[in-house]
Amino acid sequence: MLELRNKQFLIDCGEGTQIRMRQMGLKNNHLGHIFISHLHGDHCFGLMGLISTFGMLSHTSDIHIHAHSDLEKLLQPQLNYFCEKLPFQVIFHPINPSAHEIIYEDRTIQVSSIPLKHRVPCCGFLFKEKAGDRHIKRDMIDFYNVPVWQIGKIKQGADFTTEEGEIIPNDILTLPPTPPIRFAYCSDTAYSEKIIPIIEGVDLLFHEATFMEGELPRAKATMHSTARQAGEIAKKANVKKLIIGHYSARYSLKSDLLNEAKQVFEHTVLGEDMTSYEF
Amino acid sequence: MLELRNKQFLIDCGEGTQIRMRQMGLKNNHLGHIFISHLHGDHCFGLMGLISTFGMLSHTSDIHIHAHSDLEKLLQPQLNYFCEKLPFQVIFHPINPSAHEIIYEDRTIQVSSIPLKHRVPCCGFLFKEKAGDRHIKRDMIDFYNVPVWQIGKIKQGADFTTEEGEIIPNDILTLPPTPPIRFAYCSDTAYSEKIIPIIEGVDLLFHEATFMEGELPRAKATMHSTARQAGEIAKKANVKKLIIGHYSARYSLKSDLLNEAKQVFEHTVLGEDMTSYEF
Repeated sequence: MLELRNKQFLIDCGEGTQIRMRQMGLKNNHLGHIFISHLHGDHCFGLMGLISTFGMLSHTSDIHIHAHSDLEKLLQPQLNYFCEKLPFQVIFHPINPSAHEIIYEDRTIQVSSIPLKHRVPCCGFLFKEKAGDRHIKRDMIDFYNVPVWQIGKIKQGADFTTEEGEIIPNDILTLPPTPPIRFAYCSDTAYSEKIIPIIEGVDLLFHEATFMEGELPRAKATMHSTARQAGEIAKKANVKKLIIGHYSARYSLKSDLLNEAKQVFEHTVLGEDMTSYEF
Repeated sequence: MLELRNKQFLIDCGEGTQIRMRQMGLKNNHLGHIFISHLHGDHCFGLMGLISTFGMLSHTSDIHIHAHSDLEKLLQPQLNYFCEKLPFQVIFHPINPSAHEIIYEDRTIQVSSIPLKHRVPCCGFLFKEKAGDRHIKRDMIDFYNVPVWQIGKIKQGADFTTEEGEIIPNDILTLPPTPPIRFAYCSDTAYSEKIIPIIEGVDLLFHEATFMEGELPRAKATMHSTARQAGEIAKKANVKKLIIGHYSARYSLKSDLLNEAKQVFEHTVLGEDMTSYEF
């Protein structure tokens, strides 16, 4: 669950997602968009339960599901059968997983797809805040007697002309906008350098690390990544922070996975169930 | 999960069932038959995850699903899509939920349906061990020199004729068989005395208790039972032990539900997650 600008975006929805949300005390009032990376059960079997519970818990805003077009064909018959009188609509938006393109946009956020390499069509998601307004320097606004009706323009970068005709450059009146946050989610995927230009410099990268290097042949065969490979991608894409996850059940000691990734990319964090990470 | 005579029978399969099974360390090697009472999400949304995980965990024996015929129509397209190469077959057996009839039978166990009263077609399940052989009295067998080849018949109740022609009645040679266990599962259902003759005297009754008496109108409207009503059924059916369950989330103090049922039927136990109950 990604929370950004007071909105919630759910990325993938395995079995038990609604249970975890309840255990973590996550309200669903602000959840309107769900993004499904690919149609394997561990990424979508929780959708029916989530939607049907929302229907009983007075969730009223529409649920938009961004996913491979097959999902609608699979889910719609179940929605018709199990969720007859939902107080909201479920709207499917097909994704083309092999294209890097904008799949969602609103006033403050843009989401685009990241083509990944997996056994079935699969894509990651890049969430970008849009650049906000510049911040006005209160004292300078007062000093130059800027009238209120001009503040909007100045926040957007305009210079100010005084009554005497003097031009005050914008950077005397304002500070730069808060840098927009960028988050990339890449799971499930084999090691793929093709994603690097897309995720270059993001604030936070979630990259799968199903295996460790000792299982590299298996990682290749199943089109998953090792922890070291996740670190490589993070390093080559020059991201600020990496969260690894999607571990194979064979690893009881997750710190081993963390250490392997950290050997390549220091700013790595172990993704764990029921845990919040802040930008 | 009911374990009887070294077999496992899963009754209903809500979201997260496979997760609970793993948390409880339940092996699935002996699970071959799943019984679904009715097609509400909290009783069947866990099937896809369970089956698909079985497919990955080298479960090889076929899975038989006993359920309303609509389930096959809803699940088969998902099985075709998500579980292409299962190492076992999934076989659907349609139930007629309005009939009390045998729906499964093997050498040692018989399962029949119990028509229930709910918002959609719904039935409970009666599990009956078949009567076993009588137990031979070793010392008597020796005393009368009963030949080995006759023991089978004697276990099944035959008298023994000595070489001198004397007839030894069976009850001198044997003790009665272990009484067969009977377990009844009744959820979801409004209060219904029609089930009493079917569940009469069972060793263990699971009966839903969604509400307490204070919510009786809501129980009636939603076709659920109160804890007191579950106790009434247990008492009138003269069962040995009652487990209540399927509580509404509104009751944070489950002991209140237990107390209400116990006022009517003393041998009541609170059904709780992740807990085993022995016959």
